[in-house]
Amino acid sequence: MPLSPEQQAEIDAQRGAPQSTLRTTAPGMEKHLYTAYPVLDHGFVRVIDYMGDDAAICQAARVSYGKGTKSVSNDAGLIRYLMRHWHSTPFEMCEIKLHVKLPVFVARQWIRHRTANVNEYSARYSILDREFYIPAPDHLAAQSTTNNQGRGEALQGEEAQRVLRLLQEDSMRAYDHYEEMISQEGQQGLARELARMNLPANVYTQWYWKVDLHNLLHFLRLRADHHAQYEIRVYAEELCKIVADWVPAAYGAFEDYRMGGATLSAKGLDCIRRMLKGEEVTQETSGMSKGEWREFQELLG
Amino acid sequence: MPLSPEQQAEIDAQRGAPQSTLRTTAPGMEKHLYTAYPVLDHGFVRVIDYMGDDAAICQAARVSYGKGTKSVSNDAGLIRYLMRHWHSTPFEMCEIKLHVKLPVFVARQWIRHRTANVNEYSARYSILDREFYIPAPDHLAAQSTTNNQGRGEALQGEEAQRVLRLLQEDSMRAYDHYEEMISQEGQQGLARELARMNLPANVYTQWYWKVDLHNLLHFLRLRADHHAQYEIRVYAEELCKIVADWVPAAYGAFEDYRMGGATLSAKGLDCIRRMLKGEEVTQETSGMSKGEWREFQELLG
Amino acid sequence: MPLSPEQQAEIDAQRGAPQSTLRTTAPGMEKHLYTAYPVLDHGFVRVIDYMGDDAAICQAARVSYGKGTKSVSNDAGLIRYLMRHWHSTPFEMCEIKLHVKLPVFVARQWIRHRTANVNEYSARYSILDREFYIPAPDHLAAQSTTNNQGRGEALQGEEAQRVLRLLQEDSMRAYDHYEEMISQEGQQGLARELARMNLPANVYTQWYWKVDLHNLLHFLRLRADHHAQYEIRVYAEELCKIVADWVPAAYGAFEDYRMGGATLSAKGLDCIRRMLKGEEVTQETSGMSKGEWREFQELLG
Amino acid sequence: MPLSPEQQAEIDAQRGAPQSTLRTTAPGMEKHLYTAYPVLDHGFVRVIDYMGDDAAICQAARVSYGKGTKSVSNDAGLIRYLMRHWHSTPFEMCEIKLHVKLPVFVARQWIRHRTANVNEYSARYSILDREFYIPAPDHLAAQSTTNNQGRGEALQGEEAQRVLRLLQEDSMRAYDHYEEMISQEGQQGLARELARMNLPANVYTQWYWKVDLHNLLHFLRLRADHHAQYEIRVYAEELCKIVADWVPAAYGAFEDYRMGGATLSAKGLDCIRRMLKGEEVTQETSGMSKGEWREFQELLG
Repeated sequence: MPLSPEQQAEIDAQRGAPQSTLRTTAPGMEKHLYTAYPVLDHGFVRVIDYMGDDAAICQAARVSYGKGTKSVSNDAGLIRYLMRHWHSTPFEMCEIKLHVKLPVFVARQWIRHRTANVNEYSARYSILDREFYIPAPDHLAAQSTTNNQGRGEALQGEEAQRVLRLLQEDSMRAYDHYEEMISQEGQQGLARELARMNLPANVYTQWYWKVDLHNLLHFLRLRADHHAQYEIRVYAEELCKIVADWVPAAYGAFEDYRMGGATLSAKGLDCIRRMLKGEEVTQETSGMSKGEWREFQELLG
Repeated sequence: MPLSPEQQAEIDAQRGAPQSTLRTTAPGMEKHLYTAYPVLDHGFVRVIDYMGDDAAICQAARVSYGKGTKSVSNDAGLIRYLMRHWHSTPFEMCEIKLHVKLPVFVARQWIRHRTANVNEYSARYSILDREFYIPAPDHLAAQSTTNNQGRGEALQGEEAQRVLRLLQEDSMRAYDHYEEMISQEGQQGLARELARMNLPANVYTQWYWKVDLHNLLHFLRLRADHHAQYEIRVYAEELCKIVADWVPAAYGAFEDYRMGGATLSAKGLDCIRRMLKGEEVTQETSGMSKGEWREFQELLG
Repeated sequence: MPLSPEQQAEIDAQRGAPQSTLRTTAPGMEKHLYTAYPVLDHGFVRVIDYMGDDAAICQAARVSYGKGTKSVSNDAGLIRYLMRHWHSTPFEMCEIKLHVKLPVFVARQWIRHRTANVNEYSARYSILDREFYIPAPDHLAAQSTTNNQGRGEALQGEEAQRVLRLLQEDSMRAYDHYEEMISQEGQQGLARELARMNLPANVYTQWYWKVDLHNLLHFLRLRADHHAQYEIRVYAEELCKIVADWVPAAYGAFEDYRMGGATLSAKGLDCIRRMLKGEEVTQETSGMSKGEWREFQELLG
Repeated sequence: MPLSPEQQAEIDAQRGAPQSTLRTTAPGMEKHLYTAYPVLDHGFVRVIDYMGDDAAICQAARVSYGKGTKSVSNDAGLIRYLMRHWHSTPFEMCEIKLHVKLPVFVARQWIRHRTANVNEYSARYSILDREFYIPAPDHLAAQSTTNNQGRGEALQGEEAQRVLRLLQEDSMRAYDHYEEMISQEGQQGLARELARMNLPANVYTQWYWKVDLHNLLHFLRLRADHHAQYEIRVYAEELCKIVADWVPAAYGAFEDYRMGGATLSAKGLDCIRRMLKGEEVTQETSGMSKGEWREFQELLG
């Protein structure tokens, strides 16, 4: 992710100009502001702005006149209670705005989370950069043989090299032709809104993305999960670190109740009760399908 | 709107503790933070937090690395362009969080704007205060005789006095009985979630309400309009003043293109073209219904 | 819930006029159409329209050209898989439109579910009916002594009678005064939009409410839960019966994975693993707070 | 848009099986159901299901017990009133579900309309078809010289041929390599979720898209507008024809008040008033910028 000197200078200028405010600030977040954290080969995430902190969640839950916090430990307890009982609205009272650079095929997954605000770099209006995601060799995974929607081990040897070469060559050629088509040297030049159609889905785009904490945590639960596609998961993991510094109590509750927790079906709950009473339960006596039973077994470790 | 000394002290504590931040601040907004601006007889609005300013709108529209502003006049021109061409997403990049105290019947209109976040004071959990909206005499309007959904002139004399007395007495009696029902002196006490049903719709409630600038402007267009019910319009008008200080360029464009502007139908546009060519157009030759024609005439002053 | 003869005739007219359509129909749902199922003392729910069925969920999940169903058992398996893995979008492909009559304090809870469409009877424009919710004696619950947000046993004897009398008398008096204020006999009459403020929160309103199946199930999970306030829970329970007939496979999966299931925290999951290995786990060794441990114990029966 | 015989057979099977329903049907819509209307070279739109009709809009606006319609002309007048005064919720009471096949770069514009439900064909799970959008020669437009975000005249001669050749060759090569990478003949085969990144943005995808009438009309206003990119506009235009048959009164009002109408700024309104009084207004005396004045002049024809 090579930022140009001009881009870095713009970022540095913002980081060098603290201002006075009466608003709530989150000290753990201030240190992240504007910094571009690299993700994949050319991508990044950086925080542009934020609103609220752990105390703001409690302040809203209590509809209070002041800062709304008696003590940090009280707040953490309330936040855990809210998370455990699926109260979503207090978490919506925190907001974050990000600048993200990401491959188009990742952007297409990301945008399915609709409750957010987004401004994307316009390829109708502007010219895209020559930047394409090429997987690192250890992430060049084979199709999973057991899961149609997953990946297996990394490709090896000649096959891996052939794939890398195809991705690289096709990306470069597509960009050459993109440039050739829009060029106005000695010709009219194709409209940008049309020429972009020649670029493959590993080309990088970028956007401003703004979302409240409740919806961000929902995004992270799905996208930082180990079933998520690697290329979006690395963005989610980077965001997890930032959120942990921003709202440590909320993030702690999220880790315990969402990321590290599990949802049991009525059947699963019944099986556990029977098992705790000493009964030996099998797939046949569980009432579950084979797939469910396998997932249930994994859950119990 | 009498704040208790404790409430005022909590607000003062927040106003007295500026902090350092790297985030964008809007100087015109800082001065409003936390202050409770009175609305109606016991209500208020106050800003709890905000995100972004005029420059942040442009920064997002340009998906820029730095502050995203070349000059204030460039930004104002871009903002006018965005507003004129119904670009909504850059305006969504600003966010505001309010604490509002308002009568329940106003809250019920307000909540119909769904794209916002809200935490309301819980009357299942807490006891409501003895505060009811009683209209000032000059806002005690008669039913409109021409518009089923509107109001006419203020009631006068004995009728006005009778109405005021009924509203006051019923409010007080309902609250007396509310207290009597939930009292645990010498009895069990009715559940709060049930007792609240005895309170009329002029009782005050309060909430935290968070919304992005695009949706706030949409709210203001509808609720600061002179067709809106007076009791919600005064809240909208108070908010207009705050928004004008927060994002002066965006608010200026909003005034020109939304509040002060008008939407013409194809028929209306056709009539204007004909009139500008010197044709005398009447309702009969306009193709409009009587109602539309009347509104069209009002538009042309 | 006494429908007037005119209202019943309108409903009967619709029920008596089947039409031919190429759309998917859900036989279990057709029988419910338009029928007003009574809820509480004057309320009801009735289905006005619906879109989709179990097969439509699978059809969308498969983005198929035809009906999208190989066999009913395949469909049920796919639906269980989708529900188990929190796929929400296929369930959004079914939609339901309801006409609901409900007390205002219930409506205020209901409307907090924002992802839905609603048209409410306008008390600015029309005159509300003299209908108020008065709890049946066995639902006249005391405030819970253990849970600030709950209710305890039903009030008894004199206290119960006093409460009932207050609710009834205040409702009737409020309505008398409402009528008196808007009356245009020998006076101007107060604007309806103002007069309504005198009516207590147990007055009935009504609305059209349209929602997709995913969001409806989320509503039902929260509102048919035994922690929900009784007065909204009875609406949710009535809807559960209707949904079970409409999309039996989806409703079955919902019962198993949502209503009858449970969410374990990382700590809870760890405790279960330890318990299954024979360890005796106590609150002290669980890492849970007392409240969490109590809820965890309840979960394990 | 060549449907396979199997696909066509599935569609025919649905079209050949009318069922009886008590729901509202829209005769103008029934004839469109399931039929795939071609758009661009391989795309289509087809209606999978719908809910409501013109009368349903009025029924909801009136919160009525029966069909909610006195007469067709009354309904049309009410619908015009609702549209003119920006009442959106009654239009949300109609819903449509579409199956759309479209190039990825069109899908990326389309999805920015967030208030809708969507299930897209999964290229993580399934293999995409060898179908790419190649513009017809008369739509191979040059970059606009006056508008950064637009297109000019169609390219001519050799330049046009070169562009077409590049688009065709790159598409075919990319697909060859996509197939080569995922092939499991004599190798492991790259994961589908990775291989798809090699495909350019003119590859076709497909999705189920469900939206309410209010949001659909908003989509059509922006996307059927002559400023919209041609490749999405043709979809919007096809949908306009369908909506006109589905809800003729609502579509008529939409044409008059939205598509054919215009929004005037306060300045524009002031200019018109002055012009109608005989004043000669110029850009200098209008208070408008050059860009606004040009747009204003175009408006007045």
